[in-house]
Amino acid sequence: MMTEHVLPGDIEKRSFEIIAEELSSMGISLDPEQDPVIRRAIHSSADFDYAKTLHFSQDAVRIARDLIARGADIITDTNMALTGINKKRLAAYEGQVRCYMAEESVADEAKERGLTRAAVSMEHAAGDITESGTRAIFAVGNAPTALITLRKLYDDGIFRPDFVIGVPVGFVNVTEAKELILETDIPCIINRGRKGGSNIAAAIVNALLYGMK
Amino acid sequence: MMTEHVLPGDIEKRSFEIIAEELSSMGISLDPEQDPVIRRAIHSSADFDYAKTLHFSQDAVRIARDLIARGADIITDTNMALTGINKKRLAAYEGQVRCYMAEESVADEAKERGLTRAAVSMEHAAGDITESGTRAIFAVGNAPTALITLRKLYDDGIFRPDFVIGVPVGFVNVTEAKELILETDIPCIINRGRKGGSNIAAAIVNALLYGMK
Repeated sequence: MMTEHVLPGDIEKRSFEIIAEELSSMGISLDPEQDPVIRRAIHSSADFDYAKTLHFSQDAVRIARDLIARGADIITDTNMALTGINKKRLAAYEGQVRCYMAEESVADEAKERGLTRAAVSMEHAAGDITESGTRAIFAVGNAPTALITLRKLYDDGIFRPDFVIGVPVGFVNVTEAKELILETDIPCIINRGRKGGSNIAAAIVNALLYGMK
Repeated sequence: MMTEHVLPGDIEKRSFEIIAEELSSMGISLDPEQDPVIRRAIHSSADFDYAKTLHFSQDAVRIARDLIARGADIITDTNMALTGINKKRLAAYEGQVRCYMAEESVADEAKERGLTRAAVSMEHAAGDITESGTRAIFAVGNAPTALITLRKLYDDGIFRPDFVIGVPVGFVNVTEAKELILETDIPCIINRGRKGGSNIAAAIVNALLYGMK
């Protein structure tokens, strides 16, 4: 077999080195704070576009890690992202990952109001967070309507998220929905354009967690 | 807001139309049987490379659907892929999705033998399938060592998978591991090169399910 022998524990390390080497040979140098987040997104997709399209608001990485250190929960718009996030690591800071998408009340209300389940999920999450006073990071990897809803709640003065990771993937309203968050003063990490996904949302959260001091 | 109003149920339909239009404008025409699988991979990633790199062995889509219709289980190498697969749809044909990655016996054995958990997972799955006589489709979205292990079991005459969806993502042994499956006579859908992921593995399985007669 023509495969290289690499010890299990070294595969990820070697992968991150290869990504760094290739970025360097492309003439791309990353901000040291953003670097592990961008490299983990590339690691999850083998797609170097993320080095060009991931946008970080001012001090985004520091702000997100501060929120996690203070026990913030992570709200996702897919159970795939929830599955991919390192929940054990998050629990060390008292945080939980929550996803409302599979809840029956969400499905019923979405059908009744002609909305997506993701839109209703965000409303329910915003309500719960407001009530409990928890801090929360929204990690949106699938539904642009989740971001559109968060922007609407913000515009209406109903709810302001502490932080948004906005990386839905797709072809309808995805690019526009991301810009709607970028126009606000909400701290965020957003992948501009069509690309993203639940895997990228999970990768970004995990990169934040793995870099905690 | 500058977003287009699209009814929730129409978003996916519209997305698939856009993908078809763009493929057509790139001069790419897809095999009708492979088309829904390739378009769903693009839908999950917004990455049109999949139109060029997804490789199907002879009659792969028909063979995979026959297996599902006859109650095949799906074995994944990540719980993310397991989460993303439409288990309700699969259950209609008596199939289940199974992932061995989180099992304690797998972790212990991997540590003891200096292997990845994915490699040990595949051995355990192969053992269980042989014992039960179940049919199974392997859907590998993460670990090249899963594919390397399947090839080794095949070479040693211990186990021959009914079908392999081989779309691990990454930088170490990933491209090579995919070729190891392509060299065999195992029916397969393989994404050549570095790209893939749990999301792509789940998308391919779901495309197979959604196209069942």
